[in-house]
Amino acid sequence: MEPVKLTVKGFKAAAVKAGIRGKDRLDLAMIYSEVPATAAAVFTTSSVKAAPVVLGAEKLKSGHAQALVVNSSIANACTGTQGMELARGVAGLAARSLEISEDLVQVSSTGVIGEQLDLSCFEKNMDSLVGELSEDNFMAVAQAMMTTDTVEKTALRRVEINGREVRLLGLAKGAGMIMPNMATMLCFVVTDAAVTADLLGRMLKKGVDQSFNVITVDGDTSTNDTVLVMANGLAGNSLLAGMDQDGAGVFEKALGDLLKDLALQIVADGEGATKLITVRVNGASNRAEAEQAARTVANSALFKTACFGEDANWGRIIAALGRSGVDFDPERVDIGFDDVLMVREGLGLKENEEQATNVLKQKEFTVNIDLNNGSGSSEVYTCDFSLDYVRINADYRT
Amino acid sequence: MEPVKLTVKGFKAAAVKAGIRGKDRLDLAMIYSEVPATAAAVFTTSSVKAAPVVLGAEKLKSGHAQALVVNSSIANACTGTQGMELARGVAGLAARSLEISEDLVQVSSTGVIGEQLDLSCFEKNMDSLVGELSEDNFMAVAQAMMTTDTVEKTALRRVEINGREVRLLGLAKGAGMIMPNMATMLCFVVTDAAVTADLLGRMLKKGVDQSFNVITVDGDTSTNDTVLVMANGLAGNSLLAGMDQDGAGVFEKALGDLLKDLALQIVADGEGATKLITVRVNGASNRAEAEQAARTVANSALFKTACFGEDANWGRIIAALGRSGVDFDPERVDIGFDDVLMVREGLGLKENEEQATNVLKQKEFTVNIDLNNGSGSSEVYTCDFSLDYVRINADYRT
Repeated sequence: MEPVKLTVKGFKAAAVKAGIRGKDRLDLAMIYSEVPATAAAVFTTSSVKAAPVVLGAEKLKSGHAQALVVNSSIANACTGTQGMELARGVAGLAARSLEISEDLVQVSSTGVIGEQLDLSCFEKNMDSLVGELSEDNFMAVAQAMMTTDTVEKTALRRVEINGREVRLLGLAKGAGMIMPNMATMLCFVVTDAAVTADLLGRMLKKGVDQSFNVITVDGDTSTNDTVLVMANGLAGNSLLAGMDQDGAGVFEKALGDLLKDLALQIVADGEGATKLITVRVNGASNRAEAEQAARTVANSALFKTACFGEDANWGRIIAALGRSGVDFDPERVDIGFDDVLMVREGLGLKENEEQATNVLKQKEFTVNIDLNNGSGSSEVYTCDFSLDYVRINADYRT
Repeated sequence: MEPVKLTVKGFKAAAVKAGIRGKDRLDLAMIYSEVPATAAAVFTTSSVKAAPVVLGAEKLKSGHAQALVVNSSIANACTGTQGMELARGVAGLAARSLEISEDLVQVSSTGVIGEQLDLSCFEKNMDSLVGELSEDNFMAVAQAMMTTDTVEKTALRRVEINGREVRLLGLAKGAGMIMPNMATMLCFVVTDAAVTADLLGRMLKKGVDQSFNVITVDGDTSTNDTVLVMANGLAGNSLLAGMDQDGAGVFEKALGDLLKDLALQIVADGEGATKLITVRVNGASNRAEAEQAARTVANSALFKTACFGEDANWGRIIAALGRSGVDFDPERVDIGFDDVLMVREGLGLKENEEQATNVLKQKEFTVNIDLNNGSGSSEVYTCDFSLDYVRINADYRT
């Protein structure tokens, strides 16, 4: 069976080497829809927002977009008026070359903070970028977005709505929900579904809450985080405008699955990561407390280094829970690694340690925490904290 | 000039090798006052509290203590009823050997979480511990408290109150405000000042807020954190009972200085640390926001690895500020390393980068952040995040 191609009806893509920051690599890319698409996005919650994030949010009030220009190497964050002018300049260049309205061009950047982009890199390469647009180039875009990523991150979902095949294609980059060496988290989704911007926005918000918002590499939120989805309607399904419609549930589930798939790819490729770890908390007073407990464990440097060392050191888990601010009785807590119970009612089960250590030797495992204090549960996804994490992030910005 | 001896009138100390966890090292120690002392303590805020912390808080309601028994290697945390019984057992052994009331014996433990201590280690060694008590043994106590610490931490202050010399001697252990490999933070202060337990408690609270509560190695709070002060009154000053009294201000300042000295020794000896870093925030809306901003930067793994790499990567500082939840305008922020300004009104001063890098090459430096948004200021002390941090914490519990 041939693998399914990374294509979506009416969407084209291209990537070129623009020499941003003097690098000989794919660093400038474009995604283009033959027709204007409805669009929705979720941006960083940081109060320090990069220029393309400010510009993008402003433009998306219309609920429409037709093209996206993305560059890596420089984030265009903390760049003041000059950075905003550059972002507008890039959108203008793309609009002229594509012969579409500038309002329909989204701009996105990722890379080092505080350096200015040079507009000439975009001027020189915009026409060839547009000239290279093809439905087969999405993998090249995923590559051009990479910074400290070691693999490109893509995902495809196909669902049927009103007898029509609807496709969703997602590209992501980032070595975490973080601002590492010179990276930030970006995700772009294109679909040929017909769906209103309003409904798309609501579905996206829900999907992001259950994917990108529950991963962590080191707890740092970037200035450029963006998840953007564009829907061009070329699948020909009847327009989705509310959740009560036929196919809305199917589409929402496919979008949610796609986002989660990409989010887990980011954690697995977290800087220096050797393991993908699910921290599951059950039995909290409510969902919010479960998430807070899971997040505190998932961000603990001591827990993460123990995972790197394949040490079933549950004391670090219970210590993180203890400072999490979550309501529970330490003497009722159970903790397991996959299905190996290591702590029962707050006390260690020394006899299970060897089995638990074997679980930690795996590439992927789940830490199961039961607070036995209610019915709230939540999962947060994280990776281990390795020597390579420090090596990567202690290196001078190169 | 001869160095001042680590002694305080009426206090004696001893340390022995008790073979806890089978180690051949000083691991059991005692501090004893010839007369009952007023006492106050601050304990961990974690909801998971070690047995000696629970017991100690209960006993200190009386405001008095005369002896302290401390062991390293095992923290006696998450040890249930058995752990509580052991802590009481240790206090009982010491009380009988010293011929004082059990209520006046404080017990403290530090080390790995979740393992049970063996009472026989204490039974076999209590009489020889008491036999070794001497005014010259405080350095041995500081050594017996160590876990992943690489140096013992002591400090002495001498002040004059009502014409009497008053001494304060402090011992601390911990590679941070953390629960590392098998460590927790402990600090014991003895003084011959005459001071009521109530006033001592208020002074201690204030001193801890400005010392141990503003340091961080990796943001993890332990189950055993304890700062205990005992004042036996043998200096002969008139009893301090309120801040309006002669000498109360002098004593409070000496206590605060002593605590800060010990706190900074802990950060400088943070696991794997190569640098002691002060993060100073000025111009926040208020003091609490300044501390929150400083703490977010001081705990950022990306900031700390950049410091290890001696990289003046201010983008990571502003990104941490951006997610700190503190109110400020990114376009008004100034950031400097010592006196080298690197960011003015949110924009980088590339021309100063070489000078800033030179500051980061030092063993100690200050990051000066001005939010230009008010008059709140605060300092938090941290260390860098090195390869050795991961090595130390990824090692199996040995």
